Amino acid sequence: MNRNLSDLRAQVTALQPQRAAHILGCEETAAELARRWGEDEEKARYAALLHDVTKQYSHAEQLKLVEKYGIIIDAAFDRFPALAHAETGAAVARAEYDMAEDIVLAIRYHTTGRPGMTLLEKILYLADYIEPNRSFPGLEDTRTLAFQDLDAAVLRSTADCLIYNLKKSRPVHPITVETYNELVEQANLTQNL
Amino acid sequence: MNRNLSDLRAQVTALQPQRAAHILGCEETAAELARRWGEDEEKARYAALLHDVTKQYSHAEQLKLVEKYGIIIDAAFDRFPALAHAETGAAVARAEYDMAEDIVLAIRYHTTGRPGMTLLEKILYLADYIEPNRSFPGLEDTRTLAFQDLDAAVLRSTADCLIYNLKKSRPVHPITVETYNELVEQANLTQNL
Repeated sequence: MNRNLSDLRAQVTALQPQRAAHILGCEETAAELARRWGEDEEKARYAALLHDVTKQYSHAEQLKLVEKYGIIIDAAFDRFPALAHAETGAAVARAEYDMAEDIVLAIRYHTTGRPGMTLLEKILYLADYIEPNRSFPGLEDTRTLAFQDLDAAVLRSTADCLIYNLKKSRPVHPITVETYNELVEQANLTQNL
Repeated sequence: MNRNLSDLRAQVTALQPQRAAHILGCEETAAELARRWGEDEEKARYAALLHDVTKQYSHAEQLKLVEKYGIIIDAAFDRFPALAHAETGAAVARAEYDMAEDIVLAIRYHTTGRPGMTLLEKILYLADYIEPNRSFPGLEDTRTLAFQDLDAAVLRSTADCLIYNLKKSRPVHPITVETYNELVEQANLTQNL
């Protein structure tokens, strides 16, 4: 099934109120970032509306989707059960909503980031992090930064996310560390130009 | 050349005062931890006395040692120049001081840690971090923890080290992340027993 943006919004509105508010907030922020940074606004909206499409499912249901869509999982999948929805969401967006591959990848990496993120991936990653319903110390700075220096905002978000988990003695995802390290290296190279 | 502990201490005392104080403090802390956790105290002292044996050298001099001892370096070596002394120190401890391989490895991983650290490696890692000349917020807790729960103290040290670098937008070493993640997983398994 292919759906237009209005259909997707109606589907989101039927979710529990907090999740619906987050997704719709994420859509608006993604659209703003797309306009600011010259990405296709419609793609950003589709990616945002579908990024948590499987988030309401239990881990058992996630595993059924893993099997159904032949998702290849590694040790990190078991270590980070909260991230399963990014993998299954990407598969569902591709198979059930006919989304283009760039949107599928933005959904797949919206929680962890990855080295070499595309513009659309950065926009969804940040929109998910800074949309208006989010609130935690330092977030205002990241919101401002997202419209001034996109890479610096992604760098800051990855660092904040890693620090948050380290302080709670939770595992940190190696791909987020790689994303962070790559952005640090790029920032240093730019400074040295 | 093989040297006894007194010879090594005399050699350390000839270094600049701050470095000498750190190394001798590290030796005493490593000896205390060895007694507490049932490691060979003499090995712990040798490892501590030699752990910074190449730290006073410039990066150019480090690279000469890399060539001299055929150290295999990877991308992380250039990314983390401050860690070169761990690799070269290990090589010098082996080749110039005839140290046994367990001491060599403790020196090699004393700054980054590594997954599957041995008892001696954990002792040197922590002694370097908590010896009496070190001072920073929260260190007293880690000092206490090191004599109560060695793995918890290493876990805390790796997390603190990662957070410190993340807050300064410096790269973080993947092997320290792996060490941290392994210790988190072990702690969770123990809690679930």
